[in-house]
Parts: sequence; C-alpha cells; structure tokens
Amino acid sequence: MLTTLKQHIEQLVPLTDAEFAQIASFFTEKKFKKHQFLIQEGEAAPYEFFVVKGLVKAYHTDTDGKTHILQFGQEQWWITDYQAFYSGATATLAIDCIEDTHVLCITRANRELLCANQRKMEQFYLKKSSFGYMALQRRILSLLTTNAKERYEQLLLQYPGLINRVPKTLIAAYLGLSRETLSRLS
Amino acid sequence: MLTTLKQHIEQLVPLTDAEFAQIASFFTEKKFKKHQFLIQEGEAAPYEFFVVKGLVKAYHTDTDGKTHILQFGQEQWWITDYQAFYSGATATLAIDCIEDTHVLCITRANRELLCANQRKMEQFYLKKSSFGYMALQRRILSLLTTNAKERYEQLLLQYPGLINRVPKTLIAAYLGLSRETLSRLS
Repeated sequence: MLTTLKQHIEQLVPLTDAEFAQIASFFTEKKFKKHQFLIQEGEAAPYEFFVVKGLVKAYHTDTDGKTHILQFGQEQWWITDYQAFYSGATATLAIDCIEDTHVLCITRANRELLCANQRKMEQFYLKKSSFGYMALQRRILSLLTTNAKERYEQLLLQYPGLINRVPKTLIAAYLGLSRETLSRLS
Repeated sequence: MLTTLKQHIEQLVPLTDAEFAQIASFFTEKKFKKHQFLIQEGEAAPYEFFVVKGLVKAYHTDTDGKTHILQFGQEQWWITDYQAFYSGATATLAIDCIEDTHVLCITRANRELLCANQRKMEQFYLKKSSFGYMALQRRILSLLTTNAKERYEQLLLQYPGLINRVPKTLIAAYLGLSRETLSRLS
C-alpha cells in the first residue's frame, strides 16, 4: 500500500527512501468493506484518507432525505470532510464505500507535524490543494453553464472508468440530474 | 496598500517587519478603473491579484454569449484564473472591475520564489488554499441542494455588503438564476 503513496507523492515532489520512510510513519492503514462508512454525518472527522484501492463517495443528505454526491474518491484520491477535518467540528458529509476499500489515514495533528518536519510534504500539499481548487472551480462552472448531456460527458472525461463501477443512481446524484434524465443520455 | 496585505497575512501567520518587507518586495501595485480588465479570456494570466480596494468579477462567457460568474473578488480576496496562472495556458475566465480597484499583483515565478525564500508564506498559501477549497465545496453543495431562495440567502451571508455594490443582473449570473427569478426573491 505504501508503494502507491510514494509513487503518488513523487508525481509532484521527488523523495529519497529515507524521506519517504519518515513520511510513511505518519500514516496508518485501514480496510473497509463495501457499504462501510469512513465518515458519518454528525460525527467527528479526525482523518484525511488516501485511497489506495477501492471507491468511495462523499455526500450530503438534505432535509428531504435526498442524497447529493459532492465527490467520488477512487485510487490515488485524497478525501475527507475537510471542513470538519480542519475545524474539529462534526461532519456535514458522509463518506462510505461503493467497493471494498483500502486507505491510508492521517490525522490533522500528524499532518501538521509531518509538514513541519518535512517541507517537501508542505510543498506537495500546497500543489495538491491548488489542483483540487482548480478542479472544484471547473465543476462549479460546469454546474452553472452546461446542460445535462455536457455534464455527463465531462464526468466521463474526469473520472475515466468510473461509469462501469458506479450504479446510475449515484451518477445522477453527482450530476444533479434525475435518474430518468440520465437514462436518456447514457 | 501594503498595510492591508500585512494585516491579511497576519490573520494566519505572524510576521516580523523584516519578514514582511521581504514579502512585500515580491508584489507590485496596480490600479484599474471600473470596467477595465485584469484578465481577458484567451490571453495570458501572469498574475495572481490581491484586492486591496474595490470589487471585481471572474466569469466565463458560454457559446451563446451568456455570462456565468464564478466568483466576486472584494477587499482582501485573492483572485486570478488559477488554471491559466499555474499552467501558463491562456485564460478561460475574464476578470473585470465592477468598481475602481486597487490590487497587489504577484507573478507565478515570484510566488514560487517567495515560498522558497519565506516558509511562512508557503504555510500561508497552504492555509488559504485549504479555506478556498472548502468554500468551493460549500458552493457546489449549494448548487446541488438548494433552491433559488436558499441560494440567495447564502450569498447574503457569504458576501455581506455585496448586494448593495452589485447590479442584480450580476447577482443572478452568480447564482445561476434568471433575473426574473431573482427579482421575486429580493
């Protein structure tokens, strides 16, 4: 599992084996079964997760009980309820497993200690955060400007392979479309 | 103008006067008149802007010529077309002034040099980027889950005072509503 993390970080910052050994010591491994929760709404969100294998979804349930998917997390994605993770507040998102999922977890305190001890990780997180910010901006523009068909096509580009792993109902909940509208497109 | 920047940074990381003097040397001041462009679609976006005074909007114009506002930038907001700024590609967003606007500008090369020379700024940018990421997540959930009235009320909370500075047409273009729908709400 750690090899995946090393390769992932090295896409942005080069690391020696000694540096990576230090970094790895801040993470713990966890395995979750399909349908298990990584984070539950209303509970604490003490970990940021790096998905080594598997697939999860982060979502909010509205007052009518309808599910809205903020994000899918597949291999090499970082995911948590960042609002709760950074602030210490309880989660307003739930994250659960669409498939059996292996993750590496880091607590906020450990993440801060890691950045303080290993500047390369601070640089890595800054780059990752910038990329994440841009991806969310694209998603907002997509929600504002595109019709259902364009939004579906963008999803296929952004998450290649996802369409074969995820039930159509969840794809619709991500795109903000009804299941019926999605059926006409796919 | 620089005092505003110092106070802004010090909300997240404390600075000595010497440290701030070094930081300030990486920024240049610019003044723009109402309707002037900070960034034009299809051109380069070499600067990130810190708004000292004034108000700008970042927007995308779709193939039908309709304007979709991604973001407003008022006092103490950072704004640019980040995709273009980081990648060196041409801008897909335009940013122009709703009011006369004073900004501090930094190039990407200078921002990297500044972070390399002054670790506190790397920490500042990482925190800022994390906050920005969370704000965009909230906006996405808002676009997915809320009706027109709720979205309007969230805007009033997120940008207090904005409603008195911005024509209703622009508020509608930010919320993804028609001017008529907005009129019924406000």
